[in-house]
Amino acid sequence: MIKNLPYLLLDIPKCEQNIAFMALKAANAKVLLRPHFKTHQSKAVGELFRKHGITQITVSSVPMAEYFADAGWNDITIAFPLVPQMAQRINSLAKSIALNVTFSSPQNLMASIDSIDERVGVFIEVDVGHGRSGVPADNTRELALMVNLIGSKSNLVFKGFLTHAGHSYSARDREEVEKLHTSSLSQLAKLRSFWIDQYPNIVISYGDTPTCSISDEFWGVSEIRPGNFVFYDVMQNQIGSCNLSQVALALICPVVDVLAGKQKVILHAGAVHLSKERVDIDGIGCYGLVSRFEGSTWSEPIANAMVTSLSQEHGVVTYSGNVLDDLKPGDLLALLPVHSCLAVDCMGQMFDSQGNVYDVLPKSIR
Amino acid sequence: MIKNLPYLLLDIPKCEQNIAFMALKAANAKVLLRPHFKTHQSKAVGELFRKHGITQITVSSVPMAEYFADAGWNDITIAFPLVPQMAQRINSLAKSIALNVTFSSPQNLMASIDSIDERVGVFIEVDVGHGRSGVPADNTRELALMVNLIGSKSNLVFKGFLTHAGHSYSARDREEVEKLHTSSLSQLAKLRSFWIDQYPNIVISYGDTPTCSISDEFWGVSEIRPGNFVFYDVMQNQIGSCNLSQVALALICPVVDVLAGKQKVILHAGAVHLSKERVDIDGIGCYGLVSRFEGSTWSEPIANAMVTSLSQEHGVVTYSGNVLDDLKPGDLLALLPVHSCLAVDCMGQMFDSQGNVYDVLPKSIR
Repeated sequence: MIKNLPYLLLDIPKCEQNIAFMALKAANAKVLLRPHFKTHQSKAVGELFRKHGITQITVSSVPMAEYFADAGWNDITIAFPLVPQMAQRINSLAKSIALNVTFSSPQNLMASIDSIDERVGVFIEVDVGHGRSGVPADNTRELALMVNLIGSKSNLVFKGFLTHAGHSYSARDREEVEKLHTSSLSQLAKLRSFWIDQYPNIVISYGDTPTCSISDEFWGVSEIRPGNFVFYDVMQNQIGSCNLSQVALALICPVVDVLAGKQKVILHAGAVHLSKERVDIDGIGCYGLVSRFEGSTWSEPIANAMVTSLSQEHGVVTYSGNVLDDLKPGDLLALLPVHSCLAVDCMGQMFDSQGNVYDVLPKSIR
Repeated sequence: MIKNLPYLLLDIPKCEQNIAFMALKAANAKVLLRPHFKTHQSKAVGELFRKHGITQITVSSVPMAEYFADAGWNDITIAFPLVPQMAQRINSLAKSIALNVTFSSPQNLMASIDSIDERVGVFIEVDVGHGRSGVPADNTRELALMVNLIGSKSNLVFKGFLTHAGHSYSARDREEVEKLHTSSLSQLAKLRSFWIDQYPNIVISYGDTPTCSISDEFWGVSEIRPGNFVFYDVMQNQIGSCNLSQVALALICPVVDVLAGKQKVILHAGAVHLSKERVDIDGIGCYGLVSRFEGSTWSEPIANAMVTSLSQEHGVVTYSGNVLDDLKPGDLLALLPVHSCLAVDCMGQMFDSQGNVYDVLPKSIR
């Protein structure tokens, strides 16, 4: 395995601490942790979760479900609304594992329902305020229509309601996250009490990294599905989900040039490595924070330095004072990504400090 | 080969028209077309260029040079400043092909110069206003220092000056592009006349898709290196480089849900497919334009509809009127990407209308 530059370095002890933290939180709250594997998309990283007792997982596509099923995961929820083109692959996969699928509307359900022959669990996606997809949690008429449709097919097992409170990603402090979390729980609790007599085993599936990191309260919820927490990133730090010392993934990249007079460093680290995900920090668009590379891990981020521009292969770090004047071409820096899920998707593989490779679901089979 | 959804569809006749257009322009202007292959990163797309007489190419990384050398390209310029870690691979590759490398400063040159043993051509990157990397074109002292350093090593052949007028990407109309193009040519002409007595074969290497698409004048320039023009995209259309009918690449993706009341369509087409590259159109952030899929190609983009939000796997189209009310889950749309280079990098492969696959440089060997 050639380790090119730039490459993604995983700090395995930090990853494991992040997993242990979330597993303990779920145990204390008496909810199932069904982590979302779309962040790492990696069989090898999945093995770290097994060590912490995880046996049920979430994915975001049918190919991703097939990939993890191949690695022995036999209880998988696809938390993305099914499209009819995927029905035959669902039938095939459901022969060998416990598989749950998701529908986000009556139309979406009706488009696929007659093509699914195997026994599969079905979640209905509800919207608790994100406004992306799913039936509004208070739209009892549409939800009842969907529950009845599912009930009309003997191979479909109605599992319950699933939501992604993705509006937590727009929050910029913990208080804001707590507020929308409480509102989400309250909507889900109403839904649960409406349906529990008819479906005593109803599952309320909830959770995104901000709410699951920040809150300890999950009343009425059966399972949580955070994903990003395994690595965290700069965006999660901005929301308040983590400290920067919890970020377990960095892009190791070489310095191309130092423009000390202009307080800029040119890196080989571009949009094809980090993605163009951006957060505003003090009014400036930030594509990554900058740490010193320390062999097996990296330093705390350097104050007053960040990646302020990205093209396909180039990154530009802007700094103040003389904090990076000592760098020279060929020196290695460690960049904390703004969005670790996308950086992993861009890079396609990760390495630990021993040089072991952690492969990612290949693009060619997605 | 499984063709999953979403997938990238290449319109080969449009690609070939785009290549023929640029090849003719170069011939008329009596400059060499040395196209940048970072846009497609694909041996199979490279073969389309051979049909139009192209034999010399540009790439943006050492692994990309190795990949195309393996496909028989034997005259390659790496238009990205070399870092010392890559010197041994340069030596190895230069044994079998005519290879040119680039340095962007005396520091950057000095960091690698003693590690290169093979005969390689060397370009000095100059900055004509982009402000990213390279020596300012009027900094004669630094340029002379670099030329002399290169001259001191018998295996290094000074080729000339290379620039990327990347500030053309900030232009929002053709007039603005023409203006910075004229300024760039004028700076390069001065540089050329300063050095031509000492280096009669000096190469002035220039060009990006906006300037090369919009202008027909390249006085003083020896070769042009546009890349994006093979596919074009929404960003190039916004700059004025192309019509939307010239865009040769689209993401074919399924409709997940239609929220007719909200004038939104939910797609399976996210940041892992299109990248998060964005342009502002009428003050709204746009991640892609929306066309009807027509089997082997796609319609003109639908007016008053565009992708306005992307998460990892979801895309949201916002439309006005009732232009998309007829869609239903499972219907296929064709999205024109904002930045085709990044969409190709995200997807890792493309397909033509016959179902032939066009593979891309694998992530694992970059």
